[in-house]
Amino acid sequence: MTNTRTTDRADVGVVGAGLAGLVAARELTAGGLDAVVLEARDRVGGRTASKSLSTGGTIDLGAEWIGSEHARVLELVDEFDLELCEQYRSGVDRVAVTGEVFEHEERFRALAPESTAELRDAFERVETLRRDVPLEAPQEAAEADRWDGTTLESWKREVLATDAARETFDAFVRAEFAVEPTQLSLLSFVSAVDAGGGLETVTDSGGVTQEYRLAGSTQQLSQGLAETLGDALRLSEPVRRIDRRGDDVTLETSDGSYVVSNAVVAVPPPLIERIEHDPPLPARRRGLLQRMPMGAVIKCVAAYEEPFWREAGYSGSVLATDGVVSEIADATLPDGDRGLLIAFVAGGNALEWSERPASERRERVLEECARYLGSRAVDPLEYVDEAWSTTRWSTGGYNAVMAPGTVTTCGGALREPVDGVHWAGSETALEGRGFMEGAIRSGERVANEILEGLGG
Amino acid sequence: MTNTRTTDRADVGVVGAGLAGLVAARELTAGGLDAVVLEARDRVGGRTASKSLSTGGTIDLGAEWIGSEHARVLELVDEFDLELCEQYRSGVDRVAVTGEVFEHEERFRALAPESTAELRDAFERVETLRRDVPLEAPQEAAEADRWDGTTLESWKREVLATDAARETFDAFVRAEFAVEPTQLSLLSFVSAVDAGGGLETVTDSGGVTQEYRLAGSTQQLSQGLAETLGDALRLSEPVRRIDRRGDDVTLETSDGSYVVSNAVVAVPPPLIERIEHDPPLPARRRGLLQRMPMGAVIKCVAAYEEPFWREAGYSGSVLATDGVVSEIADATLPDGDRGLLIAFVAGGNALEWSERPASERRERVLEECARYLGSRAVDPLEYVDEAWSTTRWSTGGYNAVMAPGTVTTCGGALREPVDGVHWAGSETALEGRGFMEGAIRSGERVANEILEGLGG
Repeated sequence: MTNTRTTDRADVGVVGAGLAGLVAARELTAGGLDAVVLEARDRVGGRTASKSLSTGGTIDLGAEWIGSEHARVLELVDEFDLELCEQYRSGVDRVAVTGEVFEHEERFRALAPESTAELRDAFERVETLRRDVPLEAPQEAAEADRWDGTTLESWKREVLATDAARETFDAFVRAEFAVEPTQLSLLSFVSAVDAGGGLETVTDSGGVTQEYRLAGSTQQLSQGLAETLGDALRLSEPVRRIDRRGDDVTLETSDGSYVVSNAVVAVPPPLIERIEHDPPLPARRRGLLQRMPMGAVIKCVAAYEEPFWREAGYSGSVLATDGVVSEIADATLPDGDRGLLIAFVAGGNALEWSERPASERRERVLEECARYLGSRAVDPLEYVDEAWSTTRWSTGGYNAVMAPGTVTTCGGALREPVDGVHWAGSETALEGRGFMEGAIRSGERVANEILEGLGG
Repeated sequence: MTNTRTTDRADVGVVGAGLAGLVAARELTAGGLDAVVLEARDRVGGRTASKSLSTGGTIDLGAEWIGSEHARVLELVDEFDLELCEQYRSGVDRVAVTGEVFEHEERFRALAPESTAELRDAFERVETLRRDVPLEAPQEAAEADRWDGTTLESWKREVLATDAARETFDAFVRAEFAVEPTQLSLLSFVSAVDAGGGLETVTDSGGVTQEYRLAGSTQQLSQGLAETLGDALRLSEPVRRIDRRGDDVTLETSDGSYVVSNAVVAVPPPLIERIEHDPPLPARRRGLLQRMPMGAVIKCVAAYEEPFWREAGYSGSVLATDGVVSEIADATLPDGDRGLLIAFVAGGNALEWSERPASERRERVLEECARYLGSRAVDPLEYVDEAWSTTRWSTGGYNAVMAPGTVTTCGGALREPVDGVHWAGSETALEGRGFMEGAIRSGERVANEILEGLGG
């Protein structure tokens, strides 16, 4: 074997071709810089991923919903002329907690009045807490130390007294953050909610973050961006080493080296330290990366002859703690004659069930769908699922979250560039964090950082 | 460049030549197996590290103290004929909290009686909690969910009322675990204390875990073990990939491949996922590794003409929250005519101060030593420090700890082998966890796992 390694030069090297990295590259190119994008997978899109069902149609294995306030996503939908579909929301939502199934047209009003009132009060408290947490520097909140030292579990036990409200809150945290309430601090939760746009957007199942989906998968957004980049995009080329010792930054892959003035790292936080950094990253940056685990989620999709639950008056929306499934939703496309359900196994359940045989998982998930939406659920035309925790290049989903005691000790390092290396990804966003919107905005932010640093 | 990669075969491949890996290799060899040890650094010993001072003498930059109950360490000391020194413990200890400096011959009795009583009660409560936490499976404690969802910070605020007791507890947690009380759950703390031998051993500054040191560094233990391994030890050869797809396990380094029947991974947990695993590790194993950050510590050593603090009646032992230093101790060797002090900056302070210029760190640390032990501290013959968070192959110290919500969701994966890959390291120990003793015992455990698996 002879050495076929090459050395290329570019103004900017972007690590990761998810939405954040692709947007950064496009903005940098538009700003007159020469950018190369290095992607480990053989595809673009990161945590967006399309799959063709063998029985026809294309589904989302990853990020799916688009909110009406997600302006950047909607601009790309327009630009690439994609088809937006409204989320189905007629009928009643179901909430399965404490061994019972409650229902209402709005899921957070399904419980008994006392529990509903408790939940509403808790959500209002979070909105109040938000006002005391600076968006760009949550570690500077007056009560930061206490709130970062209190788990969301402890806070829940303090503010919610009924089992029904507590279990609904658990299901909500798993459904929205894919972690257990024991794994977040109150401060990291409030900060994530704040950067995500507030609880009004997060709690309303028919609300502004789950208003639309795309016919044919959200991966099309990344595919559209990739087309504009042409040869600048290199697939199947994971970056193994980032050398910052000189004035330039050198990105090394198994195929070659890229010498750049600035780099953008736009991969899930736990993957950043899988790259060898020379010199090692600063202590707080490293401390942060060791304390930002990914959530855990298995997304399950079942296709049926028709959306049978609608006939029974159900919206398809379920929130649950009584089984392994935390959330179910109707994912039927408007022009499809078939019915699609998506179910999420999240948090601790996802860590456990990712290791179970696929057939056992299918049986269990469909049984739970049947319990809430009708017995026809056990017999789909087709069933597929994706356990994101076992994927090589995402290592979990939906997002990385900060463990208790992280915001106050390491939070300041989240967006702080290190020797010409800039940090993107939805986790770093100040708007739309945790959503595709945040990924796009983070790409714009790092592009601006670099262009402004050059006196642009 | 031509391909000089080689493929070797062995019964067992050991990743990491710290105490755990070296002991495993020796035990496996004694059991009749052929073992190869692959070490990333150009030295053995991991988080033990000797340094020669330019003014003479050899000090420990890493693990130093040996407890009187650390039987395995003491056996190696005997075997390699090393010189054990007793820790100096005459004079008064000092505790600097709430802006005051308290003193007593035993540091946990230095405070006002009310605070001392509170601390004693808290430590007794931990001992009581230990009885309800199964050593091998803390996740099975009856109250596991609640205790894993309560930070040590929340618990501290509940059981300690006085500021002096709270701050002393903070200093204790930083000094012993190198993390903030916000970063541990009550369950992970109790479990770590339990596997470490209990609080009686941990809290007593003159107690059974800090009874001895070695003349000439604890790294000699690893050096002694390495000599017995001969050619089986390969330095400067980091393992980049572990392939478990076939019946064998293949360990790949930049120099070659090693095909083995079983592998032992004995590196700090955050480094395990830096290795590419094919197929990816199971979800709970991965979830665990993403939730076991290293503590953060800067160990500082100052050498003086003489141990001047002894003349003033001080033991040299200081516990503090009033500055950046959490703990100070006398490290003078019995036959040395010079005085040695060691000071630890730990937890959040270590993350922050690892990034400061070395000269600024030196000035601040010595000023604090002077405040507690006399003004001569500011003018040492020599000062050196090691910021373990910035080291390439340790990434922090003393140990990895489980973040809140980790024991209950991922704790079961801690020692569970994956396709012939076994997990060692002090963090996995059931005795002496967090100490060199635990590293040695973990090496013995994995060797037994493998030998027994072969029907030995």
